[in-house]
Amino acid sequence: MKVGDRHYRTIWMEGTVVYMIDQNLLPFEFKVQAFKQREATCEAIRKMTVRGAGAIGAAAGFAMAQGFISNEDPDIARERIRATRPTARDLFYAVDRVYEAGKISVQAAIEEAQNLANANVEAAKKIGFFGDALIKDGARILTHCNAGWLGFVDYGSALSPVYTAHRNGKQIHVYADETRPRSQGARLTAWELANEGVDHTIVPDNAGAFLMSEGMIDLVITGADRIAANGDVANKIGTYEKAILAEYFGIPFFVAAPLSTFDHNTPDGSAIEIEHRSQDEVHYQTGPDGDGKMHTIRVTNPGSEAFNPAFDITPAALITGFITEKGVTN
Amino acid sequence: MKVGDRHYRTIWMEGTVVYMIDQNLLPFEFKVQAFKQREATCEAIRKMTVRGAGAIGAAAGFAMAQGFISNEDPDIARERIRATRPTARDLFYAVDRVYEAGKISVQAAIEEAQNLANANVEAAKKIGFFGDALIKDGARILTHCNAGWLGFVDYGSALSPVYTAHRNGKQIHVYADETRPRSQGARLTAWELANEGVDHTIVPDNAGAFLMSEGMIDLVITGADRIAANGDVANKIGTYEKAILAEYFGIPFFVAAPLSTFDHNTPDGSAIEIEHRSQDEVHYQTGPDGDGKMHTIRVTNPGSEAFNPAFDITPAALITGFITEKGVTN
Repeated sequence: MKVGDRHYRTIWMEGTVVYMIDQNLLPFEFKVQAFKQREATCEAIRKMTVRGAGAIGAAAGFAMAQGFISNEDPDIARERIRATRPTARDLFYAVDRVYEAGKISVQAAIEEAQNLANANVEAAKKIGFFGDALIKDGARILTHCNAGWLGFVDYGSALSPVYTAHRNGKQIHVYADETRPRSQGARLTAWELANEGVDHTIVPDNAGAFLMSEGMIDLVITGADRIAANGDVANKIGTYEKAILAEYFGIPFFVAAPLSTFDHNTPDGSAIEIEHRSQDEVHYQTGPDGDGKMHTIRVTNPGSEAFNPAFDITPAALITGFITEKGVTN
Repeated sequence: MKVGDRHYRTIWMEGTVVYMIDQNLLPFEFKVQAFKQREATCEAIRKMTVRGAGAIGAAAGFAMAQGFISNEDPDIARERIRATRPTARDLFYAVDRVYEAGKISVQAAIEEAQNLANANVEAAKKIGFFGDALIKDGARILTHCNAGWLGFVDYGSALSPVYTAHRNGKQIHVYADETRPRSQGARLTAWELANEGVDHTIVPDNAGAFLMSEGMIDLVITGADRIAANGDVANKIGTYEKAILAEYFGIPFFVAAPLSTFDHNTPDGSAIEIEHRSQDEVHYQTGPDGDGKMHTIRVTNPGSEAFNPAFDITPAALITGFITEKGVTN
């Protein structure tokens, strides 16, 4: 997608180096970081320099390829990559695919990692095509977190239909949930939408029921980090709340994800490990002051504890349908 | 309630001066501010130096008394006070009561304002007594926003039963919703609970469904800014969401409020005016850095717009019962 005049992917590998748009600096600074070794790429996943199911998958594949390039023990490299983030299905899928390819040759591992990244782009593009059919001209769409192109290699999942609809000339408006505590909606989704010229409004996570009760939302689309065999969806904390609200108000609730996010080895949501992240993500916020100088400030009562589950599980029964690269299921 | 070794009310009047704990500085600084004239007190209500239904009511009563003290035109003074915040029932109730008393004498107006503040304290104390009966030993309670003593003259509404249960020796745990965008839960409720020694955890607003689905919440108690004749409740944005979730998970949802919050002239929630506040409350956050220096930082994509309704309306059907100074209704 476009940043200024240039086209960028969220993450790519040239030679042996992995490049990523630093998502911890966005929306205040646009910077591409380079990671030369498997361990550095792992650290970038952990620190969420790259985040979002599809982009994490690509990063994990590249990291595994870097492990082969450095002649690391592949089993140890694979375990280290797996330990970075526990919830996203794409991470495990990609690392295993590149691990298998690496049994043939280092070059095969690199090609497999590149193929996985390219496949992610193609899938996201098709999700946009199929999802566009669900979006009427004039639609007001609520989304949660960031499942845009920054969460993928390109295009995105939940936002790919939005971009396709917008390019097809439909007048649409996106309400982007702030998505505390890391505020990916207010920071990343809003940044993406602004860059692409899509009308949008940032809303506090608390305003969902208000928006829906006022008839201001026609459709909810979110992404997914992992989808169990029975259709239960692990996604950013708060997704479950919006799904319950959508059912209460009779609003369609779609989940957009490539087939690589579907995990047939996980029978249902109860088998998905939920990542609990540092409580400091709730206590502190980072951003620029009026002079553009960055500060990290405390935003909660000093001394109080906070709870920070990163994901929740939305039961399949609350999901109207899935938007995948093969079409819309329900 | 206690701050360190001393007992404080949230707001009080001595002579002709209104004193308030500055709630915009909490939890990072504890400071009492003095307001000598009606207009200064109005400005404090507008800027949320004082906030919360009961405390706003007391402030409005004191402001009206200050208008009489300064020999202002009472009708103009009343209109100015009414214009500060549109949603809280207690504001209109208090200002009208003091306006009527002022027809007799300035002294009668002052006495009426003091009586209203004292009545607020007594009502809150009784809400604690009746609400305590709903709280079992070991209970895990979710609350939204701040309806503690800072939202009243003392004791609070939603938190008064919590304080009573705690003093009666019950082991309880409070989950305090952060309550974006102004984060009154993370800042004020957590500060109150820490001062009173009540076990508590700050949770992102997004975590409600997760907590409930994990069986971590036994009871929800919130306050109210206005309650319509049919039982619809105007309260802090996000209350409606938690009520829908509580119904979905079969968890009791109580609203605690003095009878002065019930507005028999408002037939139902659709007749309640919802205050829309500046979008800057969503875009900016203020707090101390690691050296204790305060900064206001941007936390959303620069250039994007935000939407900031301050309240929502929870339909009566979602409310298990009301905790008032006369007992628990349902």
